[in-house]
Amino acid sequence: MVATLSGTPARDGYRMPGEFEPHDGCWMIWPERTDNWRMGAKPAEKAFVAVAEAISRFEPVTMCVSSRQFVNARHKLSSKIRVIELSNNDSWMRDVGPTFVINDKGGIRLVDWDFNAWGGLEGGLYFPWDQDDLIPRKVAEITGIDRYKAPLVLEGGSIHVDGEGTLITTEECLLNPNRNPKLSRQEIEGLLHDYLGVEKIIWLPRGCYNDETDGHVDNLCCFVRPGVVLLTWTDDPDDPQHEISKEAYEILRSATDARGRSFEVHKLHQPAPVIVTAEEAEGVDPVEGTYPRKEGDRMAGSYVNFYIANGGVVMPLFNDPADQAAMAKLKELFPDREVVGVYSREILLGGGNIHCITQQQPRP
Amino acid sequence: MVATLSGTPARDGYRMPGEFEPHDGCWMIWPERTDNWRMGAKPAEKAFVAVAEAISRFEPVTMCVSSRQFVNARHKLSSKIRVIELSNNDSWMRDVGPTFVINDKGGIRLVDWDFNAWGGLEGGLYFPWDQDDLIPRKVAEITGIDRYKAPLVLEGGSIHVDGEGTLITTEECLLNPNRNPKLSRQEIEGLLHDYLGVEKIIWLPRGCYNDETDGHVDNLCCFVRPGVVLLTWTDDPDDPQHEISKEAYEILRSATDARGRSFEVHKLHQPAPVIVTAEEAEGVDPVEGTYPRKEGDRMAGSYVNFYIANGGVVMPLFNDPADQAAMAKLKELFPDREVVGVYSREILLGGGNIHCITQQQPRP
Repeated sequence: MVATLSGTPARDGYRMPGEFEPHDGCWMIWPERTDNWRMGAKPAEKAFVAVAEAISRFEPVTMCVSSRQFVNARHKLSSKIRVIELSNNDSWMRDVGPTFVINDKGGIRLVDWDFNAWGGLEGGLYFPWDQDDLIPRKVAEITGIDRYKAPLVLEGGSIHVDGEGTLITTEECLLNPNRNPKLSRQEIEGLLHDYLGVEKIIWLPRGCYNDETDGHVDNLCCFVRPGVVLLTWTDDPDDPQHEISKEAYEILRSATDARGRSFEVHKLHQPAPVIVTAEEAEGVDPVEGTYPRKEGDRMAGSYVNFYIANGGVVMPLFNDPADQAAMAKLKELFPDREVVGVYSREILLGGGNIHCITQQQPRP
Repeated sequence: MVATLSGTPARDGYRMPGEFEPHDGCWMIWPERTDNWRMGAKPAEKAFVAVAEAISRFEPVTMCVSSRQFVNARHKLSSKIRVIELSNNDSWMRDVGPTFVINDKGGIRLVDWDFNAWGGLEGGLYFPWDQDDLIPRKVAEITGIDRYKAPLVLEGGSIHVDGEGTLITTEECLLNPNRNPKLSRQEIEGLLHDYLGVEKIIWLPRGCYNDETDGHVDNLCCFVRPGVVLLTWTDDPDDPQHEISKEAYEILRSATDARGRSFEVHKLHQPAPVIVTAEEAEGVDPVEGTYPRKEGDRMAGSYVNFYIANGGVVMPLFNDPADQAAMAKLKELFPDREVVGVYSREILLGGGNIHCITQQQPRP
């Protein structure tokens, strides 16, 4: 029996743990829509398989897939990976999936946010999003984990938490009128408190340059552990990202977390701008109502968009000169984890990266 | 990790338990196709809900449902019942679902048979059946239960076992050239031995009169417990069912089971012939390739088509004068179980009954 709970996680003693805390596994969704993924999504499939196989070295992976693609996905993934039929509108499990919350008595529950495809009819990335919006409910049924329904449009990629009361997000996304136009900043803070068990919200103004999600924080910065954050960076003052990162850096340096600590802020130098080629743009079906992929568009490439697994970090690589330095930095910051790189240009061409296509299920 | 096993259940020490042994739960599929279920399947939905709710009083029920019907099914079923997205071609979990096998060390595995919609292109009931055929594989992934792939076309409703080495089936179905034309009776017996752990097969010639499944045994007779069987019956010599039941009765009376016991054979008097009305026939979409529902057709009504749950029996009722005697007989035969009747004409109009739409998952 799966209950839809009437209280809130905070009132019931639950909190969202940090991604660096132990996991029971990772959820993903198979890429499929040909108006976002070029060449029938076949190049993206390879990248998703590589990410899933890399994560499965550290923890169990469940790949959700539409009935149309079930046999194909089952065939292309190793038998270590569980493949579950689940309808979807696209493959961003971070944003459409549930947020799991735990308590200190071995309990786990999940939060089911409202989802409107990153902006609904005012700047959303595709239509409809009805199947995406059902995913947390279906995950609750599959896992037998009880569910809270939160009255807030929120994507998982727009928040990062330290598991000790602190949440980082961006005004560009969470205060965007295309998400929760009727809610004030204070009301949104109240709901983040109620549904994630956080006490303090750090608001950064903007996410990465040209990020079509309206500036999700998970492409910009993340927690390494409580008190330690990592920020995408460029020293090039002519790159529009420079001002964004500098602004965030200054806010983080002067902020304190829920426990009163100052942040140790590390910089992760971004790759060179990732520009969509003519060949890449041509491989995408043009569909009215879906965000287009045009030659010359700059994608929001960032090394910060990695996934922290049990004993591992799975990070994006771009075949860029900065790849090695980024990997070295993550190895230094996560000395107890194995850092695995996956070439992920094909994921970025769809509008996100490794963190965006994954969702951890914490161990209660 | 879900394995596809290379051995066979018999070799690995597994057997199919009797339905009367303890269950972990019951699997069902939501009715939907409008070329089999009248009035958009809405009357059938009510009957399926009644069956699911009745069974859920005794053991957990999982309702599988297509993405199209997920929200509707979730809404109409109580929260006790788990609802899982699973594509299907129709709703006969007994026939399309896995057969679970257990060992005496707490192990459970499942057998994935070939499925061809009760006869494939030579007398099958609809086309295609591709989604039905994937269901056992998907159940394996959902449950994490390892899977054997059996090289045999078989529907779960065509067999009954006593869990102690005996299987009852019909020649009309299992020897039908539209199932396994290249296999001899002996080869089929060998595969039943290998995949179900049975030692002795009792072959009855025919199933119920006008049963569109080609005579599934589960509409004709079943085990109450090892050594005790129950057979649908009519005393009317003008009813074509009379000869079929008489023939089966004589075979069962003279047979012995795998342990050498003779059978105690009980008779369960059938309801009056269930005839499709004009209104019922008109509510079904005519589709080429789907078995038609015509006014005046006699459906294969039988009280034997019940489901044995933990501590309960859920039996079909027809608003027939014979209902009360049938229920009294089941109460007498199952003194330790609560017998619950569900009016199931709408299920029968689709071609089966309560046993056909359920599949038990035994407790290992």
